[in-house]
Amino acid sequence: MRIIVDAFGGDNAPLEILKGCALAVREEGLSVLLAGETEEIKQCAAQNGISLAGIEILHAPDKLLMTDHAGDILKAKSESSMAVGLKALAAGEGDAFVSAGSTGALVMGSTFLVKRIQGIRRAAIASVLPTNAGPLLLLDCGANADCTPEFLLQFAFMGGIYAQKVLRIARPRVSLVNIGTEETKGGKLQTAAYALMRQEEHFFAGNIEAREIPFGGCDVAVADGFTGNVILKMYEGVASALMANIKAIYKKNIFTTLSALAVKGGLTDLKKRMDYTEFGGAPLLGTAAPVIKAHGASDAKAVKNALRQARDFAACGATQEIAARAARSGGAAPDKQDEV
Amino acid sequence: MRIIVDAFGGDNAPLEILKGCALAVREEGLSVLLAGETEEIKQCAAQNGISLAGIEILHAPDKLLMTDHAGDILKAKSESSMAVGLKALAAGEGDAFVSAGSTGALVMGSTFLVKRIQGIRRAAIASVLPTNAGPLLLLDCGANADCTPEFLLQFAFMGGIYAQKVLRIARPRVSLVNIGTEETKGGKLQTAAYALMRQEEHFFAGNIEAREIPFGGCDVAVADGFTGNVILKMYEGVASALMANIKAIYKKNIFTTLSALAVKGGLTDLKKRMDYTEFGGAPLLGTAAPVIKAHGASDAKAVKNALRQARDFAACGATQEIAARAARSGGAAPDKQDEV
Repeated sequence: MRIIVDAFGGDNAPLEILKGCALAVREEGLSVLLAGETEEIKQCAAQNGISLAGIEILHAPDKLLMTDHAGDILKAKSESSMAVGLKALAAGEGDAFVSAGSTGALVMGSTFLVKRIQGIRRAAIASVLPTNAGPLLLLDCGANADCTPEFLLQFAFMGGIYAQKVLRIARPRVSLVNIGTEETKGGKLQTAAYALMRQEEHFFAGNIEAREIPFGGCDVAVADGFTGNVILKMYEGVASALMANIKAIYKKNIFTTLSALAVKGGLTDLKKRMDYTEFGGAPLLGTAAPVIKAHGASDAKAVKNALRQARDFAACGATQEIAARAARSGGAAPDKQDEV
Repeated sequence: MRIIVDAFGGDNAPLEILKGCALAVREEGLSVLLAGETEEIKQCAAQNGISLAGIEILHAPDKLLMTDHAGDILKAKSESSMAVGLKALAAGEGDAFVSAGSTGALVMGSTFLVKRIQGIRRAAIASVLPTNAGPLLLLDCGANADCTPEFLLQFAFMGGIYAQKVLRIARPRVSLVNIGTEETKGGKLQTAAYALMRQEEHFFAGNIEAREIPFGGCDVAVADGFTGNVILKMYEGVASALMANIKAIYKKNIFTTLSALAVKGGLTDLKKRMDYTEFGGAPLLGTAAPVIKAHGASDAKAVKNALRQARDFAACGATQEIAARAARSGGAAPDKQDEV
């Protein structure tokens, strides 16, 4: 399997990207097509003792910057490492694409350069959340702030297929994020989406209230991109604020500090379980070929995990199954794909 | 100050409601008009040794049940303790109303029986959240799942006034919950609401991402009711799941259990800080007279705090200031008040 990688996306590019690719070649047996400025990549590898074995460089003279807008990927930055990598994926030069760069640019670039699976209205970003009962897939995490009920229906079956094939959950429970369990709950979007989803008896598990998400009350939680992003950010924020409070309790005096030793292992385990790097990146669902958004702060290990995840995504046939499902029903005609 | 109270709302009614009212009379010097079935209230007081000094009973032959719908308060259950209490408030027989009963019924009952301040489009439920930097007021927490930009503008100034007058925050920072800080972020609702709010230079503090809410990144966070409810439920769920994990770490072995003693005080303090009963109930903002929704599981102390909060709300002039602000601008003509 060959994974195309954006050498210049993310806070720690190109060094950690390069290290992560080398790890993936060595430990996962992958081959890499690394998009970016050739000389810079070669210099970085040489200066840091990183072997380029298994890594082919695909020259891209430009880079996306933090100040660029998402749409720049299509014109002003069409020769950036992200754009060049996406075009290579579209041309079949690799099995999947990984970038730790701007999410907005990646979604726009994927949508226009790699394109959507026929019948799929919108590509969604999915995040794997740690819960007390195992991993939970949440989508859309922010690619589409405004959604129609049909988008949510499609997110539901795309998420279910990914959960089954990549997360290996045999019969994923797919739920709609809502403000109550009854089918009459929620705003116009939720009641209409519920009506569409309830026809999918084999996987739709009804509504889920946000409170149940950290307890793993379902396997796939479906929401519009605004709501999904709020859920993701609340998860990070509350956990973070609470851990800061607990740390402060331990630092209070010598007794508390000593007591911390007893539970240090347990707290470290907990922190690890909640660590994004353990879960790899966030897949885009709905694109014609697999794209993975790695966390912006990814280190080499996180990059390696993202590449492994990309390989699993490409190898398991999820894209083909989504295409089959979209063709069957719940898919818009191509000329209607962009309407909201 | 006289507070009207629903004797039969909430999981622990009428006993804890009655105890809480008696505490409020004794400790806060309030007088209470307690709506509910007269004989049942008298019996409960007698059997539990609760003094009815300072408590006048307002007879209401019926009760709302968990199986009732919100709209039942206007017809089928128009003689319930909640409906009778709201009508008494509308008739000026008390300064504020407190109920621990159904939120949906309370919002509908308040909107139709107590009515909205002239010019206010929708009443919103506001919750006070504990953060690492002090209390934060979040609204709307679920009364209005679908909102227009104008509703959000009104929530913003109502929340700001309440934060100033009741929470005693001198210059509250009022922010719009959004999925990024730039004014172009979010869906159609957020961008339009931002455009309205930015004209309110004296209090609008821009967007706030959900991640910053537990850190107290603003004093008032404004969202549509669906989003607000998701934020509230995520806060409860993540904190709850994390505390459960931490408890499990302590129970692991004898060393961890002993170490728990050192930090017990600190963790108890933390738990207390996050305890809803310390914050009282959730005020409805936008009704012509103050209404407080006490937590469904309220015990006597929580009920007493809710009554004290109702007194503060009524005494501080927030309702009058909201009315003045609604009249000035950003308020709909009476005939347009119900349009979405």
